[in-house]
Amino acid sequence: MIELHPTQPSKERITDDIQQLAAFVDSSKPGWTRRPFTSWYEQGREWLKQQMQNLGMDVRYDAASNLIGTLPGSDNSLKPILIGSHTDTVTGGGRFDGIIGVVAGLELVRVLQKVGIQLRHPLEVVDFTAEEPSEFGISTIGSRGMVNNLSEEMLLRQDPNGLVLKEAIHRAGGQPERLSQFARKSGDVALYLELHIEQGPVLEQSDKKLGVVTGIVGIHRYRVTVEGISNHAGTTPMTMRWDALTGASELILELESIARATYSEPVVGTIGKLYVEPNASNVIPGRVVFELEIRSLNVEILEQMVVVYREKANRIAEERGVHISFDSLSKSEPIRVDTEVQQVIHEACSVTASTIRLPSGAGHDGNQLSRIAPIGMIFVPSRDGRSHCPEEWTDYEDVTLGVHALIQSVLVFDQKLNS
Amino acid sequence: MIELHPTQPSKERITDDIQQLAAFVDSSKPGWTRRPFTSWYEQGREWLKQQMQNLGMDVRYDAASNLIGTLPGSDNSLKPILIGSHTDTVTGGGRFDGIIGVVAGLELVRVLQKVGIQLRHPLEVVDFTAEEPSEFGISTIGSRGMVNNLSEEMLLRQDPNGLVLKEAIHRAGGQPERLSQFARKSGDVALYLELHIEQGPVLEQSDKKLGVVTGIVGIHRYRVTVEGISNHAGTTPMTMRWDALTGASELILELESIARATYSEPVVGTIGKLYVEPNASNVIPGRVVFELEIRSLNVEILEQMVVVYREKANRIAEERGVHISFDSLSKSEPIRVDTEVQQVIHEACSVTASTIRLPSGAGHDGNQLSRIAPIGMIFVPSRDGRSHCPEEWTDYEDVTLGVHALIQSVLVFDQKLNS
Repeated sequence: MIELHPTQPSKERITDDIQQLAAFVDSSKPGWTRRPFTSWYEQGREWLKQQMQNLGMDVRYDAASNLIGTLPGSDNSLKPILIGSHTDTVTGGGRFDGIIGVVAGLELVRVLQKVGIQLRHPLEVVDFTAEEPSEFGISTIGSRGMVNNLSEEMLLRQDPNGLVLKEAIHRAGGQPERLSQFARKSGDVALYLELHIEQGPVLEQSDKKLGVVTGIVGIHRYRVTVEGISNHAGTTPMTMRWDALTGASELILELESIARATYSEPVVGTIGKLYVEPNASNVIPGRVVFELEIRSLNVEILEQMVVVYREKANRIAEERGVHISFDSLSKSEPIRVDTEVQQVIHEACSVTASTIRLPSGAGHDGNQLSRIAPIGMIFVPSRDGRSHCPEEWTDYEDVTLGVHALIQSVLVFDQKLNS
Repeated sequence: MIELHPTQPSKERITDDIQQLAAFVDSSKPGWTRRPFTSWYEQGREWLKQQMQNLGMDVRYDAASNLIGTLPGSDNSLKPILIGSHTDTVTGGGRFDGIIGVVAGLELVRVLQKVGIQLRHPLEVVDFTAEEPSEFGISTIGSRGMVNNLSEEMLLRQDPNGLVLKEAIHRAGGQPERLSQFARKSGDVALYLELHIEQGPVLEQSDKKLGVVTGIVGIHRYRVTVEGISNHAGTTPMTMRWDALTGASELILELESIARATYSEPVVGTIGKLYVEPNASNVIPGRVVFELEIRSLNVEILEQMVVVYREKANRIAEERGVHISFDSLSKSEPIRVDTEVQQVIHEACSVTASTIRLPSGAGHDGNQLSRIAPIGMIFVPSRDGRSHCPEEWTDYEDVTLGVHALIQSVLVFDQKLNS
């Protein structure tokens, strides 16, 4: 049984922080839009830096341009505990995704100072650079950079305006040429903890306030091309058609069926992007290209789904006389949160509010940090499961519960971890 | 039994005409591209006008800018017989669609002169302006204009460069302000006959050389919108999704199934154009919009198909919790070729080559001419059923058979028709 600390975060301060950050947005875009490497992003970080400095933290940009506020520990031979998330948003995004994880770090420091606790471990509150998919075609840029997982090829990519990523990181305060020199290595970080919105409907639907993240799903993406024969929609009898779109439709329904089946761990499968050629109302589609993705914590399930799906695709191709090909686009490995870490977080959450365990269906900076350190995550509910849109919403009460659970967790880990 | 005339068309002359016209194309575009109202189109028509004049025809542009060569008949109290088609192409089209119907008119005149026959009826060989879908969003512009079926709204439409249709017709030699004054009315034309490529695979697959067209199908077009809920592809469990694309896929397969069923007359149903929103690989589609069309000679079958389809759509909407709506985009009436006209053409075809009867699945200038006169059409095979593409091909032997059957038909009709 863990000991409870009288460390209540303030809903008012948290609300105020979130609302202040929500003011630094590109008002020409819908919702709340603070894209990385823009002036609005810089203004938000300048505000954040000021808050950290007001709390007496040592503030710096690391080589990857992550903004880091450090609070010394009582035993500086110990490796730091990192609390973080990001302040960039998608275009037309909301006020909570990423933001609450950074605000949680500020509130943690305020609470520690208020009750007069000094942690044993150094504490770093991190605003990771550019977590969302960026104009460079890469996401989690800052956390990748921190763990030396930004390749030279990535660093040389250009955004649509011709800005090179390396230069963007430099302008944002980083030292991209010294990434490997300053990279965190395995054992350099005691623990990484992050509070985040769920971005899905599970907490809300199960009427729970807090989620202990069991892992971050792996994602396998494929491009599927269905080739039939484009022909005149009026003069070609139904029996003499090789329609790529009707073939693709069968494939779309097959993926849904396979993803709806029961497995030992949850899976999802989605076809979100699809193009028809030539896409004219009076021409039988000759070619359909779509991108499918499947996600699960269990790689074997993912591999098995693809085997079954490709068998179905072969049958459809044979029956319809169309050609179906698969190109693997990407495979990200799932991350499993260590069960002992889960257990501590679960206890801290359970004493705070109603709690369940669930996997994260979305990627996070934790994917990168897990390369070098144990990680843990806490989710709070997303109204209607929405995120990445202006309707994204989490009640401030719920954010505060999440911050509370995070603070409890930090206090326990600070005692438990001896490196 | 009809009397056979020793009126053999020349494959060499027909080949030469087709190849000469094939030279007047926009070489910056794929295949053979001669869009209406362009310089290539004007050059082609200038060549055609020259051919008509060389044959001693009286050549003029009518109010709708159709190019017409006239040969007087022996009884000029009779209404003219019209032979025609068009010389414009789709972008990236072929050398035969439309062209062979105009070339057939030239060859008919040459054969008549060679064997010394003067028809009783005046003969008009017509190159109809802009039969293919144009930049003004209208097809069969010239034949519409000839029968006073171009509304003022249509005449004021602009192409993407801002050119107004009225002005385009004017520049092409027409008098758009006098369309109604010069319009052909019911009874003004004795008969309209057209030779055309099939644009489908039926003749080739049934190993026949000539097709007697029984009618031109009616086309009903709908825009269908499927509305689900757009959401995160990773964080939304399969049981909490309202995916517009899986719903649309069921609808696509249902249309195929309904169109494949057996009816008293052939039908086809096609979904050729489809858009997914937001069309991102990691977002569950929130909205899919597609255009469907169904075609048949029988309006009752079309209406019944839509009733059945909408019932299926309602069931899908209910089962999936998505919203499905239908907007009627257009309904063109089917045209039936008079059975006596079919019979004369069938006899003329049968003595020439192997013949079947079949409907036209594509629209033609005959749709417009049928408003004021009896019409008839002869089809020749399209290799692999292809048209509107560079691969469009009909053997010159087959074109010549078609011209022969057309000539025989004209000679019989000229005797038969007493108006």
